[in-house]
Amino acid sequence: MTSVDLNADMGESFGPWVMGQDAALLEVITSANIACGFHASDPDVMAATMKLAVEKGTGIGAHPGFPDLQGFGRRRMQLSSANLRNLVAYQLGAAQAMAGMAGGKVRHLKLHGALANMCAEDKAMALAAYEGALAVDPEIIVMVLAATQQQAAVEELGCRWAGEIFADRAYNDDATLVDRALPGAVIHDAALAAERMVKMVQAGAIITESGKHIPAAVDTICLHGDGKTALEIARAVRAALEGAGVTLEVFPGRSGAI
Amino acid sequence: MTSVDLNADMGESFGPWVMGQDAALLEVITSANIACGFHASDPDVMAATMKLAVEKGTGIGAHPGFPDLQGFGRRRMQLSSANLRNLVAYQLGAAQAMAGMAGGKVRHLKLHGALANMCAEDKAMALAAYEGALAVDPEIIVMVLAATQQQAAVEELGCRWAGEIFADRAYNDDATLVDRALPGAVIHDAALAAERMVKMVQAGAIITESGKHIPAAVDTICLHGDGKTALEIARAVRAALEGAGVTLEVFPGRSGAI
Amino acid sequence: MTSVDLNADMGESFGPWVMGQDAALLEVITSANIACGFHASDPDVMAATMKLAVEKGTGIGAHPGFPDLQGFGRRRMQLSSANLRNLVAYQLGAAQAMAGMAGGKVRHLKLHGALANMCAEDKAMALAAYEGALAVDPEIIVMVLAATQQQAAVEELGCRWAGEIFADRAYNDDATLVDRALPGAVIHDAALAAERMVKMVQAGAIITESGKHIPAAVDTICLHGDGKTALEIARAVRAALEGAGVTLEVFPGRSGAI
Amino acid sequence: MTSVDLNADMGESFGPWVMGQDAALLEVITSANIACGFHASDPDVMAATMKLAVEKGTGIGAHPGFPDLQGFGRRRMQLSSANLRNLVAYQLGAAQAMAGMAGGKVRHLKLHGALANMCAEDKAMALAAYEGALAVDPEIIVMVLAATQQQAAVEELGCRWAGEIFADRAYNDDATLVDRALPGAVIHDAALAAERMVKMVQAGAIITESGKHIPAAVDTICLHGDGKTALEIARAVRAALEGAGVTLEVFPGRSGAI
Repeated sequence: MTSVDLNADMGESFGPWVMGQDAALLEVITSANIACGFHASDPDVMAATMKLAVEKGTGIGAHPGFPDLQGFGRRRMQLSSANLRNLVAYQLGAAQAMAGMAGGKVRHLKLHGALANMCAEDKAMALAAYEGALAVDPEIIVMVLAATQQQAAVEELGCRWAGEIFADRAYNDDATLVDRALPGAVIHDAALAAERMVKMVQAGAIITESGKHIPAAVDTICLHGDGKTALEIARAVRAALEGAGVTLEVFPGRSGAI
Repeated sequence: MTSVDLNADMGESFGPWVMGQDAALLEVITSANIACGFHASDPDVMAATMKLAVEKGTGIGAHPGFPDLQGFGRRRMQLSSANLRNLVAYQLGAAQAMAGMAGGKVRHLKLHGALANMCAEDKAMALAAYEGALAVDPEIIVMVLAATQQQAAVEELGCRWAGEIFADRAYNDDATLVDRALPGAVIHDAALAAERMVKMVQAGAIITESGKHIPAAVDTICLHGDGKTALEIARAVRAALEGAGVTLEVFPGRSGAI
Repeated sequence: MTSVDLNADMGESFGPWVMGQDAALLEVITSANIACGFHASDPDVMAATMKLAVEKGTGIGAHPGFPDLQGFGRRRMQLSSANLRNLVAYQLGAAQAMAGMAGGKVRHLKLHGALANMCAEDKAMALAAYEGALAVDPEIIVMVLAATQQQAAVEELGCRWAGEIFADRAYNDDATLVDRALPGAVIHDAALAAERMVKMVQAGAIITESGKHIPAAVDTICLHGDGKTALEIARAVRAALEGAGVTLEVFPGRSGAI
Repeated sequence: MTSVDLNADMGESFGPWVMGQDAALLEVITSANIACGFHASDPDVMAATMKLAVEKGTGIGAHPGFPDLQGFGRRRMQLSSANLRNLVAYQLGAAQAMAGMAGGKVRHLKLHGALANMCAEDKAMALAAYEGALAVDPEIIVMVLAATQQQAAVEELGCRWAGEIFADRAYNDDATLVDRALPGAVIHDAALAAERMVKMVQAGAIITESGKHIPAAVDTICLHGDGKTALEIARAVRAALEGAGVTLEVFPGRSGAI
């Protein structure tokens, strides 16, 4: 029987500022990527978010980012490999503590924002970041953007990993994302997003705009929680997968090349 | 045979700014209190400091402080109990990760600066801070200022702890420190500091300015590493203790009231 | 003819996080207290907020706070007089630059959060903070909580100032605010708030819960913008004052004791 | 008679961490580039540094950088033009306030670290940064790395500017700096540095490694203050220029293309 995980970022509030619809999202997803205080969140937000995730039985992930609250970790920064390794290790450790305090455990790690984008393009950066995580927990499952340099890095490291595809983004024939500036790059139609996800999960492949099938590690689907449409898409994807008999559950993690 | 631990704060550099004489201090101490990035340090400094401590076999402690780099955690802040608990848990988690990465383990926790001072006066604050640490690691040894509300808190919590006295501060007859503004409050004479420490360790008591003996948990002696005198005092204390046949070793941690 | 100013805090968003309803509030108020990047806001938020205020012809104020984004400047911090003076000067300078860039000018200064509360109780702190502002601009109008140590400080300094009362808080007979924990301390009824403000403005006095009139510098009324009720109260206060023939305009600033 | 300015970065301490030898450098230089709190410094350090500079009659410059204390503003960040403009304006405003408080005035602006390097390569970035400064003070003198895109930007803007060359770096024939990885790129010999500076100032040109003369705006020479050698070079450069009859004085600022 086919199964897949649904993941989303959460715990992105900071101090007095609220972001996202975490409680609603937790009804839909099976894995949560929880911000670690560098690009969003703080110890109090983390404690509250971990508690929510533990109560729901959601798979907990650390979601480290660049040290840039104002930029929400979305501005590229040029860090050394040592910087990257230590940055990820530190944030993972903080997340482990906050999860433990809530009675849970961090089982996966997913990079955030510009850090994720840069590591999707640059294997050396991805290696540095993931080495930081694995030095802290060799058993952690690294969630990667399928068919990117992130995936190349985990395959080289030989660690446990899970591949991710986007619910709301169109793909080019080389498995990269269609440029946001182009029409159709971002999918706003919940029914369309849902239909595509069912097809990709059943095919075990990324299906590009042209219809090409690229076999991929479709272990988890990235959903968003900001804005009304995002939540609608998230719910539609979940309903369509359930309707198609796909089991929604936390990814087990895989090893080695796809 | 009598034994005691020697501890000092370290890893207090930040980014391009260097502080302290960590390498020299590590030749003297048996336990290191390592800053966690809120009042000093950063992931890179932590990684380097943990590595040094592991190489020396020094006991590793997390040294959390207020989130105030400019003030070096020395400015009092009024935080809620929840703030305090989460603040300490977060920093401990980060320290655990950085220690683990270096092949070590955090075995104790000591509060820094204004956070430490406030918790020495206010048991409720100390309880909140230590609960944060114990929620992350129930086996951690909490290093407390002997005969303060910090000690009252660990006795109430029933956790493992170690009592600390100062090498370079004079004590009042109620076991509080003589006000820094008064003459003789701070001891600058290495020989005098060393002599006092030998006496207190052998007596298992705080010896006040008036000569009064207050039985205390003299498990570890706090040394400083900033400035030439501090290092001189540290070395003199160590030499005098060795000369008196006192074993210098990492404290085992105790449980229950003294 | 009687006139009064209506002020509110704004520009309290930070990076990706939005706070407040600035555009709606600007339709109601005559003076805006704009956050300066230490407890909220950032250069981009300041630029955008200054632009809005300039377009509306709103009186622009710098609203400095403690360096504590996570705590939104609401956590008390113990700073030296030099710290306070420089902290306020720095933030005022930043606000002046951002106002100037938008074609405006900072004409008043109001302290935020815990900094304001501490200065309302402690004249020495208020003096230090205001000296910082006056060293940067001797002509700036300092907005003070009427009948507090903030007012005592500006009277001592001999600078230009304006007195402020709260639209939604009940007063004790010594002009202090009724403790928030007590019933009736915070006024949630828009009509009641509006009626009280008309009476106080016309009386030139704080009217306490017991009905006592305390002559006061009623130059400006503090309104809030967070939450639906707050905006409703703001609008009701404005409408009632206009209905009573009170002119709503930027305060001119006064000198000397009341 | 030929004249030139000598500039150096200062005020780069932060909180408890001291950096540089500001007092010694102020004996040598004529213009100081003072950090503004984003990559180094804080309101207290700025106040103290401004006071020193005013006492010495040194020309005061704002030295804004990226918001990255840990990285000391030396890590590249990808910011939007609006980000850059507001970032520079905010820091300039803060510097103006702190200078004013000390009885001085900011007369020039020089970008720091990675921000400076990126703007030396990318005219659009330089334009955004300088527009932020000029929106705050249209009369400010922008100090640029001679013969880079920084200079192209000020020429396009038509603002007042001054050109800068390095005392301790070798130049390629296209006026770029020799890569630090190559031998001879950084000059450590004080006598050699001094001799080169006299020649370049007298020639009004950058003299490259191959001996080529590139006419340039040699208005100010960048000196460093970190490390023993740096101060030695600074003093040697000053002595040699004085010996050659060159007047050392604050640059007047120029307009238009060279």
